Formats: sequence, structure tokens, C-alpha cells
Amino acid sequence: MEQVSANRSHGGTQSVHTHQSAVTGTAMTFSVFVPDHAPGTKLPVLWYLSGLTCTHANVTEKGEFRAACAEHGVIFVAPDTSPRGDDVPDDEGYDFGKGAGFYVNARQAPWAANFRMRDYIEQELPALIAAHFPADMARQGIIGHSMGGHGALTIGLRNPQRFRSVSAFSPIVSPLNCPWGEKALTGYLGPDKAAWREYDACALIDDGARLPDLLVDQGEADSFLEGQLKTHLLVEACERAGQPATIRMQPGYDHSYYFISTFMAEHIGWHAARLKA
Amino acid sequence: MEQVSANRSHGGTQSVHTHQSAVTGTAMTFSVFVPDHAPGTKLPVLWYLSGLTCTHANVTEKGEFRAACAEHGVIFVAPDTSPRGDDVPDDEGYDFGKGAGFYVNARQAPWAANFRMRDYIEQELPALIAAHFPADMARQGIIGHSMGGHGALTIGLRNPQRFRSVSAFSPIVSPLNCPWGEKALTGYLGPDKAAWREYDACALIDDGARLPDLLVDQGEADSFLEGQLKTHLLVEACERAGQPATIRMQPGYDHSYYFISTFMAEHIGWHAARLKA
Repeated sequence: MEQVSANRSHGGTQSVHTHQSAVTGTAMTFSVFVPDHAPGTKLPVLWYLSGLTCTHANVTEKGEFRAACAEHGVIFVAPDTSPRGDDVPDDEGYDFGKGAGFYVNARQAPWAANFRMRDYIEQELPALIAAHFPADMARQGIIGHSMGGHGALTIGLRNPQRFRSVSAFSPIVSPLNCPWGEKALTGYLGPDKAAWREYDACALIDDGARLPDLLVDQGEADSFLEGQLKTHLLVEACERAGQPATIRMQPGYDHSYYFISTFMAEHIGWHAARLKA
Repeated sequence: MEQVSANRSHGGTQSVHTHQSAVTGTAMTFSVFVPDHAPGTKLPVLWYLSGLTCTHANVTEKGEFRAACAEHGVIFVAPDTSPRGDDVPDDEGYDFGKGAGFYVNARQAPWAANFRMRDYIEQELPALIAAHFPADMARQGIIGHSMGGHGALTIGLRNPQRFRSVSAFSPIVSPLNCPWGEKALTGYLGPDKAAWREYDACALIDDGARLPDLLVDQGEADSFLEGQLKTHLLVEACERAGQPATIRMQPGYDHSYYFISTFMAEHIGWHAARLKA
């Protein structure tokens, strides 16, 4: 693991790192914020999964998470959204291929060799974080935006023993039922939609996955709400299943980091309350 | 004036605007954050002047000012750092020409036609803000970073009747005494250093300019501290003149927005206390 940068910020250290990933077969970049802490102390970890077209850098620069993470003593990890590099296959669209890994393990050629973001987030990067940072891996939460909200919800629902807290900003709640999801999962997984269900938050809940609770914020002025995000499908799935969830529609807010940053501190406080020792 | 974008954020509206400037002879872009407020209410205005290479966008994306501005009910205006456009002269260096207006009225060819950022910030943009936003122009503060810290200090010191509060992050405190200043002011103003004094915070204080107080934060790990910023010259000028000033050296912090964003909320609170009705 190589440190790309480190900057003191908000009473902690914001750093960026690269490493050669065995899972994706590429170099991968991620950022970590570690609040100042007593020597030997371990801190809870909040994973942030980003949306389409993003790298680790978007939330690191625009997310406004550091003040709240420092206040609550929470490590914040921001991975990339896909493998990168000249040898990695790509698609002309912004919504498939590089920058659009959808947090799945691809099964279809030519994607299966590199696009294994599920194993990267579920297996490889946690081991690296545990080995190199003062992270208490018994106290993890996960949060994400848009495609990363989909990632946070599905990874959280599949791994309730790992994550004490799961929240999302403007998530894609059902790839089975939106054009982004249909394109990406057809490409990565193939046409058999039974194989998609473990990558669909609503289907996971319908199939029995449960979490203690969920927090979701969605802007009402989000231009992707009606055609792609379809928050109401998650509301309905939670109601059908009796899954506790706080799903809030926020008037006037759009899909951007101007929205995310507005509610970031509140989400971090919500996670921190569930990540206390 | 044309609105480029508007995004709801932190209980207010973050917008970006362009207008044709009579002062610079070019289109100019700026951003404004207006917190929600009662109809007919006017809010105090905090001007933020950015540093070398920046546009309005850097602080707008990375400055983490909106939560504090919403809390205190303060409008935040972020202008560009120079005229822009294909017809505007430029220099190969990042520290002169476009992105490096130094908040002066240039006197030398070919710069004098467009590089009039002093008049733009002191005259033209305030009139535009007063005409188009719910701004109480009797309650203005100014803040800036690096070259923009120089701008905030010098514009504040020259206009104590306009600004109730002046602060800076890692300012260039004396263009007369650093390579950035020598290059820029030679180019814009010519070799007669007597003409530079109204653009030098330390010289202005030596020459009798006074403010009620000043707040400056400077990172000790700032790579420009020793060669360019020379904070100690401002400390000494304030001591010589009896100018009240709180000038804080912050261990471990560098010149980046990771530093600025850390102390932004505190600066806004400091300004807000001085901008109360």
C-alpha cells in the first residue's frame, strides 16, 4: 500500500492510498480520514460508497464529513467505484464500465476479470483497512450515494453481522426496475434476473434480509428520482416486510453533493450512535 | 446578470452567476450562497476572495461554509480571481495573469485594460449584489485565502467604513517582500514600489490604516509560509502599530482547502458576531 497524500484537516488526517488489488487485478485508490485519537485506541469505521462517474475524490473534497467524523471519533473510508487502467474494459456510457462498478462481482466477459467490486468492498479492502489503520472492525457502518447508496444497502443487507448501521443518500433502490440497473446488471451478470436479486435492495428485503433499521434521504428535486431511483419501491418493500426504515423526502434538494453535504453530519451522527463501543 | 446554476443546500440556495463587467471588459463569474430568510429581510454579506489559480468554484465546492452561513444567516459571495477569456492577456506562470489578479487595478500594458480586480471587488460587484440579492450592505465582512487573504486584508484596511470584520487564511501579508508579490506587482503596477504600498497589508498598517481587529489563521506546515507568506511580517506590523490582531499558527496544517475548511466555521462565527444588526 502506498500513501499518495496526507493532509491535516479538522483535527485528524485525510489521506489517499493506492494498492495493487488481487481481486480486481488493478491498482485501486481509496481515501481515509482518521480523527486524532489516543495511542492504542481503535475507532469505528464508516464506509462511504460513491455514485456513478465518481472516484474517492468527490466525497473527499465535497462531502463535508470530516468535522462530524472528528466530533464522533469515526474513521471514514471512501473507495473508488470501479477498477481503472488502460487494460480494463470500458463502455462508452457513463453508467457502465469504469466509474460504474455497481458493487457486483461480474460474471460476463469481458467484465468478470476486473469488475469484482463486491469482493473488493466485502473482503479485500476491509482486510487492508484493518491491517493499516486504527480501525475497530467490530464496529462498522456503511453509507453511500446513488449507485453507492445501492451498494451500501445491498452490502449492508447481505452482511448484517458486519454492519451495525446502514444509510443512503438518493440510492438506486432496485436495479431490477430501472434503466441504470438493467443496463449494468445485464452487462455484468447476464440476462437471468434471478441472479440480480442479491444486488437489489428491494429484492433482498423481499427475500428475507433484515437490518435493525435504515436511514435514507432523497431529494424531491432530484432529476433521477422518477426514472431511476424510485424511492417508493424501497418504502413499499420495507412496509411489506416490516423492515424498520426512516426514508425522508427532502423538498428542493437535488442529486448533487450540495444535497449530500447538507445531511452528511446528521447521517454520521446517526451512525455514530449505533457504533458506540 | 445570468444565473448559471442554483442548488438547494444546507437550508439555503447556492447559485452561480455570470455578468458582463464594465470594469474588466469581460464576462465575470461569481457564486452566492443565500440562507433561507423571512421575506423582506436583508442579511449581512461575507465576501470571500480566493487564491492563485482559483475560480469561484474552489471554495464553493470545498470551503464547507454553508452550514455556518445558514446557522448565522450570512450571505457568502465568492468572486473569481481575475478576468478570463481568449482576449485577455496571460502569462505562462500560474502566479501572474489569469487566475492571479492580485486584487489590484493594473497600470501597465497589456494588463491595465482588463486586470482591474480592485474596482471590481470595491465598486462593481457590490452594486450588483446589492441590486439582486437580499443583502444588507451596511453589514459586510471580508475573508480570503492566500492571494485572496492579501486581497481581504488590503481591501479591508483601505475600506474600514465598509467592512465591519476582516479575516484571512494563510494570507500573503506583504507583496513588497515576497517573490509572488514582486512578480505580480512589478507586472501590474510597474517598478515604482511606492505605488505598491496600497496593495500591501503591512505597508498599509505602517502608513496608518486601522481596523477594529483582525483574525488570521496560518498553517505551520504550509510550504509557502517561509518563502511567500511570511506571517511574522504581519505580526510585527500589528505590534508596531498597535493594531489589534489575533494571528494563530496552526500546527500540522498546510495551504489547502483541508486547512481552510477546518477553520471556516469558526471564522464565519467570528464575522457573524461582528455583523449582527
